[in-house]
Amino acid sequence: VRKPTVAILMGSDSDLPVMAEAARTLDEFEIPREVIVTSAHRSPERTVRYVRRAKSRGLRVIIAGAGGAAHLAGVVAAHTTLPVIGVPLASSDLAGLDALLATVQMPPGIPVGTVAIGKGGARNAALLAVSILALTDRRLAARLERSRREMAAMVSERSRRAPAALAKLLAETSPKR
Amino acid sequence: VRKPTVAILMGSDSDLPVMAEAARTLDEFEIPREVIVTSAHRSPERTVRYVRRAKSRGLRVIIAGAGGAAHLAGVVAAHTTLPVIGVPLASSDLAGLDALLATVQMPPGIPVGTVAIGKGGARNAALLAVSILALTDRRLAARLERSRREMAAMVSERSRRAPAALAKLLAETSPKR
Amino acid sequence: VRKPTVAILMGSDSDLPVMAEAARTLDEFEIPREVIVTSAHRSPERTVRYVRRAKSRGLRVIIAGAGGAAHLAGVVAAHTTLPVIGVPLASSDLAGLDALLATVQMPPGIPVGTVAIGKGGARNAALLAVSILALTDRRLAARLERSRREMAAMVSERSRRAPAALAKLLAETSPKR
Amino acid sequence: VRKPTVAILMGSDSDLPVMAEAARTLDEFEIPREVIVTSAHRSPERTVRYVRRAKSRGLRVIIAGAGGAAHLAGVVAAHTTLPVIGVPLASSDLAGLDALLATVQMPPGIPVGTVAIGKGGARNAALLAVSILALTDRRLAARLERSRREMAAMVSERSRRAPAALAKLLAETSPKR
Amino acid sequence: VRKPTVAILMGSDSDLPVMAEAARTLDEFEIPREVIVTSAHRSPERTVRYVRRAKSRGLRVIIAGAGGAAHLAGVVAAHTTLPVIGVPLASSDLAGLDALLATVQMPPGIPVGTVAIGKGGARNAALLAVSILALTDRRLAARLERSRREMAAMVSERSRRAPAALAKLLAETSPKR
Amino acid sequence: VRKPTVAILMGSDSDLPVMAEAARTLDEFEIPREVIVTSAHRSPERTVRYVRRAKSRGLRVIIAGAGGAAHLAGVVAAHTTLPVIGVPLASSDLAGLDALLATVQMPPGIPVGTVAIGKGGARNAALLAVSILALTDRRLAARLERSRREMAAMVSERSRRAPAALAKLLAETSPKR
Amino acid sequence: VRKPTVAILMGSDSDLPVMAEAARTLDEFEIPREVIVTSAHRSPERTVRYVRRAKSRGLRVIIAGAGGAAHLAGVVAAHTTLPVIGVPLASSDLAGLDALLATVQMPPGIPVGTVAIGKGGARNAALLAVSILALTDRRLAARLERSRREMAAMVSERSRRAPAALAKLLAETSPKR
Amino acid sequence: VRKPTVAILMGSDSDLPVMAEAARTLDEFEIPREVIVTSAHRSPERTVRYVRRAKSRGLRVIIAGAGGAAHLAGVVAAHTTLPVIGVPLASSDLAGLDALLATVQMPPGIPVGTVAIGKGGARNAALLAVSILALTDRRLAARLERSRREMAAMVSERSRRAPAALAKLLAETSPKR
Repeated sequence: VRKPTVAILMGSDSDLPVMAEAARTLDEFEIPREVIVTSAHRSPERTVRYVRRAKSRGLRVIIAGAGGAAHLAGVVAAHTTLPVIGVPLASSDLAGLDALLATVQMPPGIPVGTVAIGKGGARNAALLAVSILALTDRRLAARLERSRREMAAMVSERSRRAPAALAKLLAETSPKR
Repeated sequence: VRKPTVAILMGSDSDLPVMAEAARTLDEFEIPREVIVTSAHRSPERTVRYVRRAKSRGLRVIIAGAGGAAHLAGVVAAHTTLPVIGVPLASSDLAGLDALLATVQMPPGIPVGTVAIGKGGARNAALLAVSILALTDRRLAARLERSRREMAAMVSERSRRAPAALAKLLAETSPKR
Repeated sequence: VRKPTVAILMGSDSDLPVMAEAARTLDEFEIPREVIVTSAHRSPERTVRYVRRAKSRGLRVIIAGAGGAAHLAGVVAAHTTLPVIGVPLASSDLAGLDALLATVQMPPGIPVGTVAIGKGGARNAALLAVSILALTDRRLAARLERSRREMAAMVSERSRRAPAALAKLLAETSPKR
Repeated sequence: VRKPTVAILMGSDSDLPVMAEAARTLDEFEIPREVIVTSAHRSPERTVRYVRRAKSRGLRVIIAGAGGAAHLAGVVAAHTTLPVIGVPLASSDLAGLDALLATVQMPPGIPVGTVAIGKGGARNAALLAVSILALTDRRLAARLERSRREMAAMVSERSRRAPAALAKLLAETSPKR
Repeated sequence: VRKPTVAILMGSDSDLPVMAEAARTLDEFEIPREVIVTSAHRSPERTVRYVRRAKSRGLRVIIAGAGGAAHLAGVVAAHTTLPVIGVPLASSDLAGLDALLATVQMPPGIPVGTVAIGKGGARNAALLAVSILALTDRRLAARLERSRREMAAMVSERSRRAPAALAKLLAETSPKR
Repeated sequence: VRKPTVAILMGSDSDLPVMAEAARTLDEFEIPREVIVTSAHRSPERTVRYVRRAKSRGLRVIIAGAGGAAHLAGVVAAHTTLPVIGVPLASSDLAGLDALLATVQMPPGIPVGTVAIGKGGARNAALLAVSILALTDRRLAARLERSRREMAAMVSERSRRAPAALAKLLAETSPKR
Repeated sequence: VRKPTVAILMGSDSDLPVMAEAARTLDEFEIPREVIVTSAHRSPERTVRYVRRAKSRGLRVIIAGAGGAAHLAGVVAAHTTLPVIGVPLASSDLAGLDALLATVQMPPGIPVGTVAIGKGGARNAALLAVSILALTDRRLAARLERSRREMAAMVSERSRRAPAALAKLLAETSPKR
Repeated sequence: VRKPTVAILMGSDSDLPVMAEAARTLDEFEIPREVIVTSAHRSPERTVRYVRRAKSRGLRVIIAGAGGAAHLAGVVAAHTTLPVIGVPLASSDLAGLDALLATVQMPPGIPVGTVAIGKGGARNAALLAVSILALTDRRLAARLERSRREMAAMVSERSRRAPAALAKLLAETSPKR
């Protein structure tokens, strides 16, 4: 078992279904990762203790997902100089707008690279970590580029199927005006 | 000199002109206070150290003002069981909406009593602290009630002067349509 | 039966399922409370009558939850110098943003300590009341601190279980891209 | 001197320059009016006392302007069955969005007819009052209709002058791209 | 059959379930009303024709409900000097915020009294119409005041039942933290 | 088979059910169209290649629908001088507000004509294309005008049925207050 | 003098400085245009009369700019099948967000192609009109493409000068942290 | 002269005063950088050409700042697997909210690490780049940590001076209520 190089933190275990997308993506690229539930507010000391040891334990990127007044990524960034990526989660009534602003509007001095709200953001957080790690890992860089090409190919393939899918939709549904 | 019972924290000394309103209000009620500049992000350890000692130093209420991804009140609340009052500041491009959401949308377990954005909020943070302290200080309670009556009287007085002020305004300005 | 020290007001009985969270929390800490349905708009006189008598009846903190143009907490605060805590409720089409702004943006002079929208906010309103009462109740303070430690322990416990839960999720679900 | 038929209430005398627009408009239509500064929060009893006596004093429409957590119109509406028109004011950092939501999102049972934020809203509040009074005052109705025709004529006149004004603008300013 | 005194306009028959609340409310007060589906955009000429004849047909108040870029109330107000009440509907993806702004932010000169988004707003539009008609109908005024008292009594009654309802809720549900 | 004159682009095949409305509308007017799935981000080269050839292939209008950080219409517009119509899609947590702003707020120099979020917008994108093509196609212009008249007639027809539909609704549902 | 092919409508002559940008742009491309001040609300009949005659007078595209509850473009679109381009103006307290939503969120059936808020939007409205007219005017199409190339060249030129401009800025200003 | 390792791109030279903050920060850490003005919309080919060559030219991180419908960072990210950091700029009427959403809400597959709106965000973009480069540069890592300590010390120093600054403020200004 290789030591983890990316940590995936989340404020609550109810965030797991969304943040799993980050884990799945790192697994695709065979990047060892660990998953930690820790809250900036409910377990602040544990959070700080974890973050302070992150670098010496070999971690290189920290991904932090949280909802509402999402302070987790900011608190993590305050205690490490490792790159920190924040994933705002739509767990409150405000659809993630609160989490987005609380994650991205960091004061000068303590950066958090923020990605989109929710599952797509969790995937992109992992891909941003991959792109950082790929700077010094030629094989990973090649794999990332291959993944991009596959993605483009998949879009082409879906486009090829679109006319038939559309014809089916138009036949089935009645007009909405 | 009496020991401070209320702490006024702010994330940056550029917040001083707004947070001064909280100090001025506590001074009106002769409540000893102290003013600390400390950031949840730029001086996290100092913030935590300060907050952990607050209770034993005799502080009873903590007021925390911050702008942007305003984590200060939340981080303070995570490290103390004293009542924490958050003042969102309009120091970013988003007019304080970011600070408001980052202060008020705290997760269950760690409360922050949030007041209005800016100077009016800073005054109200102090008044809320006064109302808490007045629960066990009859003289303070009486003073707070007197202050309310004076405020109502001042509104009456301003109303009395309004017709004349209005007449002047109408005479001076040309219609805007 | 002890006399209530915290009042939980709400604008409509349809708010009960959310505001119940405040009652449950106060019950956890064995703080006597009472629950009142009264509207700033539909029963304004009853609201004012209730609030004016609150202090002499021994109440020490008032929690008020309302949705839409949520004036309840503000109207309560206008008639008492007791600490007032406002809970914005997401009962309109605007997901509680209206209730949040109508509760928190109080003018200087009349403070309302506002908490998060919805159930989490209701719990935090009660915890803020507990932290206020704990200022003069050593046993309550100890209990509040114990509750914080239990919360942190629960987060640790959930973190311990997270890798297994994640593995299960990853095995079950197909990738979403 | 005729008894006032329309009351213009505002939460603070700093609202006078905006609310003056309502007074000016009522003066244009020779509708007797009075101007009162009274706050839903800072002088709640005076507000209620005033509103309760409004009908018997001969008032027929109440206009209420307030900013921030603008409760004034709602509190007025809660204590009278006269038509109440709310003017949201942009006096906080949130540009009047808070005042708009706090004025318009009233619960079923207590209506407030809300107009636009600021000076234009103040004028329209007066015009809506005029249209209500004109239902039973044929001369006023005729005058209102004449005013509409004059307004349309003024637009035509301005359109006639637009090409020249535009030519001047284009000659003076350099292109912005 | 009495001639209608209030018109309820809506932009689409899909708005009927919401706008029905206005009809129901007028029926409670035995105010004759008519319901018209007409769009500011899809049937502009019919809308204008209807509005121009409204006054001479005996109508005294026009209620207009629309969603999205809700222009109906504004277009109606542009063609009549009768009081116009706008009901923003949450029929687009933006939860009625678009309809609210498109209804309330009218330019100076053409007022629309706007009420809350959705069903509660539809009820309040009718009640505002009742309050306008009650200015010259003593029996209607008395009925409106009685309705207010009944509403207050209903709140009291619900408050009386709240403790039992709460106890049931607390017994049934498990804590959510 | 006639060559397509309108292209319907979308960023993902999951947008097909919404964008189908544009296809259906063009089919109503017998305007030949083609449907392409291509992403500004995931298949940028394919997008650019397609757009660059559009004009010479006989396309005259390009409709582009995308959600989230919706760059598709903007990227298309950057590579062609054909008229480009953008349809913001509500595929993220922010209900299409992100897509709307990312589509409409184009910098001076590169225009995108933006329509409403979602299905209604997709239909209108097609109708705007029709109105552009109708400038030089008298038969199409006549058909478009007939379609407008039919739409107005349908609104009248629905209005005729509204009283009966309302009566049914009022009989069925109980009041909501 | 050639007959105008593009009309630039605006709701108020105070919009002229912004809408002038559309005129200037059309002048650049030597497209004859006319400028009309007419309001959807204050001069509705004149607006409709103008729009109905537009097509037969030889106009081919209508640009309409308005602020607040910006109904002008929608009302224009309701009365013509010519392509209509809406420019939202930031003339209210809400920075043009109201005008944007009131312009873009049109119901299915009546399209308005909406551009960015303000001056940049006014320029793009004109450029979109140019791209529509260029569909059947080869010389105009060539000119539009040349304009695009010049724009790209200007960006390159500015980029060439950027390092020197930056060095000057860095030398002059002190760091802001 | 060392080859640049970080590129700072911006959509317009009017963004230079804000993006200069990123350059200044990289200069502090002696990281070679280059500054490019290029637009996703006005010079799309140049943008793509630049980005495609970035990696082979030795660049390791790309920072992209843009306002309005800010597509620059997304378009850059679509054409490279290097880490891309987006800086939303407040150059439109919407105070940067449009740029924030257009930068951060990227679809799964193409990540952009987004920082705060404006100057603070520009500084943090550079610091995030530093933290990425520091992963493989021990001296840079040490320097980054020293910078953090200096920042914390500066906060302490400012806190020390705060009481005197506050006293001065309180003496000078009159109370605002």
